[in-house]
This record gives sequence, C-alpha cells and structure tokens, in this order.
Amino acid sequence: MASNIAESPYAARRARLAAELSLGGADAILVMRPVNVRYLTGLASSNAGVLVYDDGRAVLATDSRYAGTARQVAADLPLVEDRAVAATLIERARKGGAGGLAFEAHAVTVELHGEMTRQAGPLQLIPQVRTVEGLRAVKDDAEIELLRAACEISDRALEDTVARIAPGVTEREIARLLEFRMMELGAERTAFDTIVASGPNGAIPHHSPSDRPVRRGDLITMDFGAVYRGYHADMTRTVALGEPAAWQREIYELVRQAQSTGRRAAHPAASAHDVDAAARSVIADAGYGDHFEHGLGHGVGLEIHEAPFLGPHKAGTLEDRVPITIEPGVYLPGKGGVRIEDTVVVRPDGPELLTKTTKELLVL
Amino acid sequence: MASNIAESPYAARRARLAAELSLGGADAILVMRPVNVRYLTGLASSNAGVLVYDDGRAVLATDSRYAGTARQVAADLPLVEDRAVAATLIERARKGGAGGLAFEAHAVTVELHGEMTRQAGPLQLIPQVRTVEGLRAVKDDAEIELLRAACEISDRALEDTVARIAPGVTEREIARLLEFRMMELGAERTAFDTIVASGPNGAIPHHSPSDRPVRRGDLITMDFGAVYRGYHADMTRTVALGEPAAWQREIYELVRQAQSTGRRAAHPAASAHDVDAAARSVIADAGYGDHFEHGLGHGVGLEIHEAPFLGPHKAGTLEDRVPITIEPGVYLPGKGGVRIEDTVVVRPDGPELLTKTTKELLVL
Repeated sequence: MASNIAESPYAARRARLAAELSLGGADAILVMRPVNVRYLTGLASSNAGVLVYDDGRAVLATDSRYAGTARQVAADLPLVEDRAVAATLIERARKGGAGGLAFEAHAVTVELHGEMTRQAGPLQLIPQVRTVEGLRAVKDDAEIELLRAACEISDRALEDTVARIAPGVTEREIARLLEFRMMELGAERTAFDTIVASGPNGAIPHHSPSDRPVRRGDLITMDFGAVYRGYHADMTRTVALGEPAAWQREIYELVRQAQSTGRRAAHPAASAHDVDAAARSVIADAGYGDHFEHGLGHGVGLEIHEAPFLGPHKAGTLEDRVPITIEPGVYLPGKGGVRIEDTVVVRPDGPELLTKTTKELLVL
Repeated sequence: MASNIAESPYAARRARLAAELSLGGADAILVMRPVNVRYLTGLASSNAGVLVYDDGRAVLATDSRYAGTARQVAADLPLVEDRAVAATLIERARKGGAGGLAFEAHAVTVELHGEMTRQAGPLQLIPQVRTVEGLRAVKDDAEIELLRAACEISDRALEDTVARIAPGVTEREIARLLEFRMMELGAERTAFDTIVASGPNGAIPHHSPSDRPVRRGDLITMDFGAVYRGYHADMTRTVALGEPAAWQREIYELVRQAQSTGRRAAHPAASAHDVDAAARSVIADAGYGDHFEHGLGHGVGLEIHEAPFLGPHKAGTLEDRVPITIEPGVYLPGKGGVRIEDTVVVRPDGPELLTKTTKELLVL
C-alpha cells in the first residue's frame, strides 16, 4: 500500500506543497479552490477542501454529493463528509494542534474569511496567494500527456472544420462545427467559449460568434480548444476565404513572424517580459504596435489561463516543462484582424509544439 | 433617447438596485461578479465592473478585450477602459464624492479587498452580500421567455436522445447525444456537466458519465440542461431500460409523488423550508428518508444554482415569477436511484411548468 501511495501523482504534489509550507511558517494549508483541490487529490467538485500539513499528511472534505466519488479517486486520503468544508477542516487543524493555518487569500471571499476567523479561535489564519498555482506551472509527464491529447483533438477538429468553411456559413455555425467535432473526438468539453471572428469582426480579439455569414475576402480567426481529462488546449488560426488582399497578407505574415519569434524566445529561464517583448517588437517595428493590445500568452493546464502570464508588465521566468500559449495578433478596427496561437511546452532544446496545424496562410 | 433608456431592462434593474442602496446607507455599489454585471448592463465578460449610484446613475469599466462589445450592448452607459476595474471605479466613486461604497463581500477576495482598501482612502468600503443576487430571484418577462426557450431545447433534446438509448450504448454516449442535440437546437452551451447515471451508478447523485454500457434492467437518470442567451434550464428524468423490477417501480412512483407534492407546495409566500418539507415527507413517510440527502431544488436564471434554495435549513420565501427546480430523488447504494426534476416558475395560480417531458415512467 505505501508504495502505491507514494506513486500517486497526487501524493507527490501534496509533498511539494508541504515543502513550501515549511518555508512559509504555516503548519498546514487549507486549499479550497476547486481546481487546486483537483490537482492535489484528483477530486473534481464544486465544494471540497483539502487540509495539507507541513509533513505531507492531508484530509479531504466534501459534501454528500461528491463523497462517493471522493472515496474512489482519493482512496488514500481520510475523508470528512460535511457541507461546511472550511469550518470542518479548520476544526481539524485546531484539534490537530496547528498554530498557523495558511489559506488562499486570492480565492477566499471577505464573507467566508469572516466566518473562518470566528471558527479559527486561537489558530492563526495566514493569507497566502497562489501557492498551489505556482506549483502547478511546471507539469509532470502525466499532465503533458493529457495536454498533448487535448491539442491533438483540437488540431483534428480544426482540420475537419476548415474543410467545411465556404461563403454563406455563419460564424456561429463554424464555432458549432469546431465544438461538435472536438466532442466527437473525445473532448470532455470546450476549453472556453469558441471565438470565430470574420471580416471586420476579426478586429475584436474576444468576439462572440455571430450570425454573420463569411464572405470571399474575409479573414476568419478561430480561437478554440478541447478539454481532455481536465486539461485545456488553446489554439488560434486565421484563414483567408478567397484570395487575400495585400494588407491581409501583410498583417498575416507579420503576426506569423512575431509568433515564430515569440516561440523561439520561450526557453527555460527566459523572463515572461522578454518573451512577450521578443514577439511584440516584431509587430511594433512594422508600425503596428498600437494594434496588439493583449499579452503574448499564458500558461495552460487545469485552467485555460494559469501561471505564467506573458506580457509587458509580467514578472516571473519560464522553466522546463511549463506549457504556455504564444498568441500575438494585429487588430485593425473596422477592417479585420489576425491572431495565430500555439500551445507549446517549454523545453531546454526549444519549445515542444503541441498544436501542429500549419501556420502557412490557408486560402480557402 | 431618454425613453429608450428607461425601457431598457438593464436600466430598470439598476434602478431597483439603486433603491436598495438608499436603504442600506451606501452612496454607491461596486458590482464585479461577472453574472451580476451582465444582469445590470448586458455585458458578458470575465473582467468588468459597474458602479451604480443611489440615484441610478452608473459607470461601466472593462478592459480592451471587451470594450468593443461593451460599447454595443451598454451604449447607454459611460465606459472606462481599464484592466484594473476595481481601482478605476473606486477612484471614480471617490472623485464623485461618495462617502460609503458597498462591495460584494461574497465575491471580493481577501487579496482584492486589501488592494481596494489601499485605494479607497477616505471612502468607506461597506461589505454587502448577495444584494444583486436577491434582486435577480424574481424574473422579468424577458427573462422568463429565455428560460422557456432553454427548457424547450432541453425537452426536445431529451426526446431525441431517448429514442436512441438501447443496450450497449454507454453513459458517456448518452450524455454526448443530449449535449449535441441541445447545441443543434440552439443552445449556446450546456448549463452544467451532464449527468447520466445507469444501474448502480444511479445511486450517486452527481455521477460523471462513464464508459459503462447501459443494460436491460437499468434505471437511467439523465440530469442536464441548455443555456439560451445566458439563461439556464435544468431538468432530470429517469427512464427504465427493459421491464423494471418491483423495487424500481416502487421508488420511481415514490419520487414522482414527492415531486408532484413539491410542485404543488411551491406557491408565492411559501417558505423555502416548507416546500422542501412537503416533498421530503412523502419520501420519509415511505421509509426512504435517509436516501434523499440533497435539497429539493434551487432558483435558476443567469446561474444554474441561484437564490432561492429549497432545503431543510434554508430561509426565505418564494414569490411570484421566481423560477425554481423541484428535484427530489431516492438513492440506494449499490442498487441504483431515481431523480425527477422540473424547472417551474412560481405563479399565484400554481407553478408554470417549463420542462414538459412526461413524468410517467418511460420503459424503453
């Protein structure tokens, strides 16, 4: 039994968290962000918490709706069945003799914190931010394998969808084709609300698919991804319907070059700021700096947006085995836009490309 | 222009909120929960805030990703384009001479509250909980129309899916059929992760669809719903594959009777506790009280679970035009379970049924 437990990725993750705790001066941490509970225990639920002590011991709490699942996926953990997850785990920590209990200050609300303070008594509540999120940035092999599967589903869905784009098909229909195909290919859900932005709508980075039919002369930007066993793919391609105009080719090639430059800059120890700057300067040097207003990319994993974040004002450095997106764009109000995005994994010998669809301009 | 603005449901909702504020002693409220911002302005976004003064004036803030959409859907509101939504609106409130600013203590994190306190200066931050959520419980006609459409999509998807259930089809395939069909029928997404629980899995209220093929002798519980323009349907039906055993018929008829009793109890001014108790006592009287461990139902609207909540320890009373679910169940560990759920709207002359699929036991 002991060796089985040691081999669980969840126990290994809790051990990494416990090591951080001993550095931070807390005896234990109460983790309740659902995605962090899932990362540490395997339990996906909307109401659960896990108390992790600095020696690696842990207790899971959830309510009756999830207790059956919890007993299956987290069989190695003691389970408390209680709807009041925070209260019951704070009581555990107090009775277990903890003096300082870390909590997720970026997730606990002012309201809940008031309740927790009343329950804590002599136990000191220590605010921490994004401790588990920090651990999650570097992925283990099992996680990268799931990301690879999510990206493969996304690539294949795009290939099948592109074959069905023709004048008259609406943005919404294209989005639905992408989403259906991802589900057929084994996605458990879509990673976020699919963006399909055609013609002038392409100038809106987060455009919601509309009933606008695509037309010859449009650039069509598709930003989408599959979730596979909790892990999110994120990719964007822009295609041309009919022969593109000179300005369309120009911004496409510019974005493509910026994307390639950004990918090449994404090596272990590169700063989040420098990777962004590498791609951004390509666009700025061509005179389009005002037309690329969002960050270059972000980590992906159990969340669609997670650490690290790549942008002009972002701190932090990349590391080996950190999956990120690289997604520069140029948006020309009233005219249209281009975005090209891959999910890649930072590696010592250059990023591993998980989304493999060509970045040549596809002319349909 | 003025008359157009007055006719907007959003302006009317902000006026209702403003009236609550004057009661609570705040000069303005900073609303940032995305679903509440959507309710008050029409803008669906992951980063936006709206400052509503007690005289009904309002200012919207969001970042560059959503600014274009904001200008379209909330053309009647001044817009501040800034990523730091809380900071920029707190500054507005301060400069606008507000002395007390309410904030959503159930949504603002401990971390953000620390930043807000630093920015507030002499402005007093006043914690409030679920003020906008309280307003949202009673729906206007436009909202009920959208719920009706969401429920109609869900009913039709179930009808089409049931026709395709046969021995050997897996839970996951049934879930996918339901979800595909809802999307084809115009759903913008599924309201939550579809539950399909067959045979012994039916004893787990929140079972995730597995690769288990359904078999003759199974009860199959399907809990699912469509989202239509932001509004969530929620329904559950349990069907039998092959002639049901006596115990299956017994618990089905029991749950059906409890559900019917619960619906009849849901009239304006009924307490959340009494409606739950009406249905629960039917199950308890038959000796199955220990096998119905969740609440009877909940409000539905822009969220899948919203006020009011129906349960043994829930406060509050129903009102005219409050949509709720009525969803009793009986779960027998190792054997199986039954749940039957409708979305209904509380009305003076008895609840309006939005999910219309028969509650006779379907034997496939």
